[in-house]
Amino acid sequence: MSSNSFGQLFTVTTFGESHGPAIGCVVDGCPPGIALAVEDFEHDLARRATGKTRHTSARREADAVEILSGVYEGVTTGTPIALLIRNTDARSKDYGNIARQFRPGHADYAYWQKYGIRDPRGGGRSSARETTMRVAAAVIAKKWLHDRFGVRVHGYLSQLGEIVPVQFDSAAIDWDVVESNPFFWPDAAQVPELETYMDALRKSGDSVGARVTAVADGVPPGWGEPIYGKLDGDLAAAMMSINAVKGVDIGAGFASIAQKGSEHRDLMTPQGFASNHAGGVLGGISTGQQIVVSTAFKPTSSLRLPAHGLDTDGHTVEVITTGRHDPCVGIRATPICEAMLALVLMDQALRHRAQCGDVGTVTPRIPGRIDG
Amino acid sequence: MSSNSFGQLFTVTTFGESHGPAIGCVVDGCPPGIALAVEDFEHDLARRATGKTRHTSARREADAVEILSGVYEGVTTGTPIALLIRNTDARSKDYGNIARQFRPGHADYAYWQKYGIRDPRGGGRSSARETTMRVAAAVIAKKWLHDRFGVRVHGYLSQLGEIVPVQFDSAAIDWDVVESNPFFWPDAAQVPELETYMDALRKSGDSVGARVTAVADGVPPGWGEPIYGKLDGDLAAAMMSINAVKGVDIGAGFASIAQKGSEHRDLMTPQGFASNHAGGVLGGISTGQQIVVSTAFKPTSSLRLPAHGLDTDGHTVEVITTGRHDPCVGIRATPICEAMLALVLMDQALRHRAQCGDVGTVTPRIPGRIDG
Amino acid sequence: MSSNSFGQLFTVTTFGESHGPAIGCVVDGCPPGIALAVEDFEHDLARRATGKTRHTSARREADAVEILSGVYEGVTTGTPIALLIRNTDARSKDYGNIARQFRPGHADYAYWQKYGIRDPRGGGRSSARETTMRVAAAVIAKKWLHDRFGVRVHGYLSQLGEIVPVQFDSAAIDWDVVESNPFFWPDAAQVPELETYMDALRKSGDSVGARVTAVADGVPPGWGEPIYGKLDGDLAAAMMSINAVKGVDIGAGFASIAQKGSEHRDLMTPQGFASNHAGGVLGGISTGQQIVVSTAFKPTSSLRLPAHGLDTDGHTVEVITTGRHDPCVGIRATPICEAMLALVLMDQALRHRAQCGDVGTVTPRIPGRIDG
Amino acid sequence: MSSNSFGQLFTVTTFGESHGPAIGCVVDGCPPGIALAVEDFEHDLARRATGKTRHTSARREADAVEILSGVYEGVTTGTPIALLIRNTDARSKDYGNIARQFRPGHADYAYWQKYGIRDPRGGGRSSARETTMRVAAAVIAKKWLHDRFGVRVHGYLSQLGEIVPVQFDSAAIDWDVVESNPFFWPDAAQVPELETYMDALRKSGDSVGARVTAVADGVPPGWGEPIYGKLDGDLAAAMMSINAVKGVDIGAGFASIAQKGSEHRDLMTPQGFASNHAGGVLGGISTGQQIVVSTAFKPTSSLRLPAHGLDTDGHTVEVITTGRHDPCVGIRATPICEAMLALVLMDQALRHRAQCGDVGTVTPRIPGRIDG
Repeated sequence: MSSNSFGQLFTVTTFGESHGPAIGCVVDGCPPGIALAVEDFEHDLARRATGKTRHTSARREADAVEILSGVYEGVTTGTPIALLIRNTDARSKDYGNIARQFRPGHADYAYWQKYGIRDPRGGGRSSARETTMRVAAAVIAKKWLHDRFGVRVHGYLSQLGEIVPVQFDSAAIDWDVVESNPFFWPDAAQVPELETYMDALRKSGDSVGARVTAVADGVPPGWGEPIYGKLDGDLAAAMMSINAVKGVDIGAGFASIAQKGSEHRDLMTPQGFASNHAGGVLGGISTGQQIVVSTAFKPTSSLRLPAHGLDTDGHTVEVITTGRHDPCVGIRATPICEAMLALVLMDQALRHRAQCGDVGTVTPRIPGRIDG
Repeated sequence: MSSNSFGQLFTVTTFGESHGPAIGCVVDGCPPGIALAVEDFEHDLARRATGKTRHTSARREADAVEILSGVYEGVTTGTPIALLIRNTDARSKDYGNIARQFRPGHADYAYWQKYGIRDPRGGGRSSARETTMRVAAAVIAKKWLHDRFGVRVHGYLSQLGEIVPVQFDSAAIDWDVVESNPFFWPDAAQVPELETYMDALRKSGDSVGARVTAVADGVPPGWGEPIYGKLDGDLAAAMMSINAVKGVDIGAGFASIAQKGSEHRDLMTPQGFASNHAGGVLGGISTGQQIVVSTAFKPTSSLRLPAHGLDTDGHTVEVITTGRHDPCVGIRATPICEAMLALVLMDQALRHRAQCGDVGTVTPRIPGRIDG
Repeated sequence: MSSNSFGQLFTVTTFGESHGPAIGCVVDGCPPGIALAVEDFEHDLARRATGKTRHTSARREADAVEILSGVYEGVTTGTPIALLIRNTDARSKDYGNIARQFRPGHADYAYWQKYGIRDPRGGGRSSARETTMRVAAAVIAKKWLHDRFGVRVHGYLSQLGEIVPVQFDSAAIDWDVVESNPFFWPDAAQVPELETYMDALRKSGDSVGARVTAVADGVPPGWGEPIYGKLDGDLAAAMMSINAVKGVDIGAGFASIAQKGSEHRDLMTPQGFASNHAGGVLGGISTGQQIVVSTAFKPTSSLRLPAHGLDTDGHTVEVITTGRHDPCVGIRATPICEAMLALVLMDQALRHRAQCGDVGTVTPRIPGRIDG
Repeated sequence: MSSNSFGQLFTVTTFGESHGPAIGCVVDGCPPGIALAVEDFEHDLARRATGKTRHTSARREADAVEILSGVYEGVTTGTPIALLIRNTDARSKDYGNIARQFRPGHADYAYWQKYGIRDPRGGGRSSARETTMRVAAAVIAKKWLHDRFGVRVHGYLSQLGEIVPVQFDSAAIDWDVVESNPFFWPDAAQVPELETYMDALRKSGDSVGARVTAVADGVPPGWGEPIYGKLDGDLAAAMMSINAVKGVDIGAGFASIAQKGSEHRDLMTPQGFASNHAGGVLGGISTGQQIVVSTAFKPTSSLRLPAHGLDTDGHTVEVITTGRHDPCVGIRATPICEAMLALVLMDQALRHRAQCGDVGTVTPRIPGRIDG
């Protein structure tokens, strides 16, 4: 598996640098027969896009997807689907002064140490622009998961700095609320507070971290493979592969450290599980409950506030970032987390089908299947 | 990649059920020329072993490793190394009554839904006994990493329930203290408190979660692959693949959500990084700093306290676990977290060497390399 | 994918040296619910076994398979199936004198150059003994392919030195004839000739090559993936991975070089294809016709006749092989070629099911499906 | 590994249909620091191109490669290299009449059975146009192999129908002769005969098969992995993945069936191997000798001569191909076979380096290394 490919059977290979000619991806292993048009990508790409509100970076990309292959007369054919987006708003001059500098908190130094060379324009390959193609690829996964199984994938911001939602029931979120504010926040009453907080933050020149929670409803029990192909293991790798992520947890997650076993374990009744501390996964396999995965985003290191970095000669330099950057990268990471969740589910669905057969073609597992 | 294999180039494939004839693994891709004998496995297997103190499960396994292949006259030959451990202390009768029950918080129900069949003896494949082979395989990785690069891998318990270490500098842990108490706890003064806490917990029949932190010193900068093969992405998958894990974070991890960027980003000086909120990884690639990864373990669901589960007919049953189980599975997970960290580093070292060449055979990256 | 693993979804990882403690394999990705017992392996292992007749090596191994995991109450559970065979008839003294010699035509020199170390006992890992585990793993594949799809896999010797079958219709072989003579020869009338030929060859101390043809009937159309996962591409890799193989072809194979297109292309009628020069594969995908793959085995280089080799100091040595060896290794390679064909089909069946769904769950492709 | 990707560490993923908007590839795992410009691709793409002489198809494509990523200031950076070629000469109308027909000898029927849908324009994904990107990707591999190890890869036509080279020493081919005639033929004196033969063939409306031999000089000993990652196993899969290939052999190949062991085994002397029946590979590992791999191409099935096919309703149709097609596809397959050989060597070089270290960084294997 190459390091720019994700998924074993529904395989997404991405390419492109932030300020190169284009970014793109190849989606291999896609089932045939899925209706697909360029319009399908618009909604999620817009949700992720820069320049949406004053709270995110001012870079504006059309993000017009071209389908280069794998679709014939509007339907996927089973051959690789190549998607291409030209970079139209690249401003290399913003970054020219840091070509020989290693910025603190950035991948510059690590890339240099690894390869002995790096593309400094806009962060090159390490830019979050790469995640555009994940969102695009996941559009296909979401369609198939929904059409075939009724799976619905959503995401929301579950923490911004030290602010957490007040009114909040994770299993009963009003997704219209989430989608109607620029923070993907589940509690409408708090939005003004967030606006004020972000305005002050932007004015200060500083940044802050965030927590994004992605959920999937309707996932059948049985997806995920034991041991090294666990559903939660794949989710952990998927989320950690997103830029600026420093942590991932499932269900009760880190909070389960302080829980007692008698509290944590989700009791089972003929009507279903009585709670969902597990986050929908036991032993690496889905249980039929809602899949819940949360991701911790660090505050971006691209600040107007000066900081000590190094240059390629090993001397101290003062680094100030004047380019366009988000004061909280976690906000528009919400669609990216959704995308990675969808890609993992799609891949695991195909892997499950390979070993165990299509749902509906095997004998029902138990008479009283719950939550399925 | 099969779901029971871990690693792309240093590949560990494990097999075996808790109460089957044996457990084992095949280690493929191992460099030739490493001295290896059965005695090498004893130390780490003993650290992980059950039955060590009254605070862990009473099951006692000799855990005697047999080397079946890949070693000739005490040296690895480059061919696959098969390791085998016979199960000698399996007591199937302990588990017979739950063959047709799904225990809350266990993988039973998920396995049944996936496969339509499961081996109920001791949890079968979902038992933590499988992790024995990870620890064994990692012994080889630790040897090579240390002999060739001077890498040292350690782990400690960084939280037990709500108890956290008092005296504690993560970069300057006294590993003799950690190894000299049954909790892998870094602060000797707190050990009596932990003993008291665990005795009360065991008496109550309940269990609690824990946090384990694994660190690696001496990792050269440049290991890890961008995007989907990130060092931290691999670590997240590795840790999440361990039984009972619900979360993983790197460096400041979830705490970075509430941090400001001006606080989080680690400044660079000619003498090295000024802090390590990154946990040794930027852009998915090692920076030469200490690698720091923490893992959240849920409280075990195997309790003497009764709880509602289901049977295979979909009826409610009251489940009581009378077998041998740890009140805090996180404690002896410490060597397992170390093992997964070592396996990830070994694999990434080989992957880096493949693409970029051996350390020492390429032109130095920068004149004033720091921390390397 | 590690180099000792075969198959992407039905993955067989083998281990072990010819004269080490044991050989074995781990079969991962196996569908649950297949009845499996140690007796199932006996027939094919006996067909492959050494010591069967005077025309093959005199080494006698019990080849008793132990199932270490993945089977519960006689049925596969979906978890990895580990199979183990202890080496009981290893005679290391036969090979002691060549520990520091490179024998012409053997892998000794290549292993030494690659690894700087090798296990010289009986050829170590490069011995054909490794293929025992392929035959064992393929027993499981054959069962599933037959039970689920009615696929039948057979093999026969289609050339021995310069001798080819006289009476011979590849699509209508009498498999009872093939199985009733020690050469897997399809024409009973020629068996005495082969006996005389082999007796003379053995007396001369020389060896000869052979051609083995493996066929599969009942393979549904649609298995195999375009481009780099072609059914015939996988077959080529599979057959070439067998010891002593120097060539692989499909259907008309090398004979198609001298064919005209008007002769080669198989016409299609509503009743089916009119011929099978394609060998059952077009564009890398099965057509529903008989799959036909032939493999060229070189003559073994282990001869009583002396030859010039080198020692590890680079000096010329005269090499004479006095151990037990077959004058024609191709003969008992027949079950091995069958095994590799079955393993490829099994893997491709699962891969097809992953992307395109179970046969029977999709709309029939064309009204008048042919040959399927 | 997705089915449109080739190579484990130097991974080439191709996409695109014959008459879609574009074809392209993503090359992942490429070492950093290789000088690369669009001009580098011109020579080999021209050698492969259609429309070169009257003996190949009349389709004319500019085949102008655009580098979309992975190269900065003319040097590879270690990130994925995406290459794109727009299709400019697609004439869909040539193929419109066969959209609902299955042509004999083509992949049409197999694709339909597999996917239930296919892109009929110019053969869609099953067109040999896909191989353009293999040739492009291999340009990078050839550069690195040559610059770092002095490896040289060549190919020639070793059989055309029943015509074989007269004057011919495979180890001493004059590559200027091969490159100076449109047949890649090694014996200049035969070229007029070939011209006459091909003119007659084209006039007849029929086609013929061919044999292409690709060789690599300068390959160090030790490349290739035992068992399922054998150098010759990878070569077999690589060649069989090319359109119209029905067979692959190594060194003496199928001719070794009729050889005696005393003839086949290549004797070793302090000055090197005395012959090369092995084709440079023993036990799946390179020996330092010339790598020799031959590939059998079937005659194309696209003929002006009518033949019976089927339509999607299962009825017989008479198929006549009036589009542009080569009467012998094997001729311009020569650069494709070279490309696949180069890609396999590149991948194995990286795999060897991963496990065993860079050449030059390990202790020399034997004092008197031969042929290395």
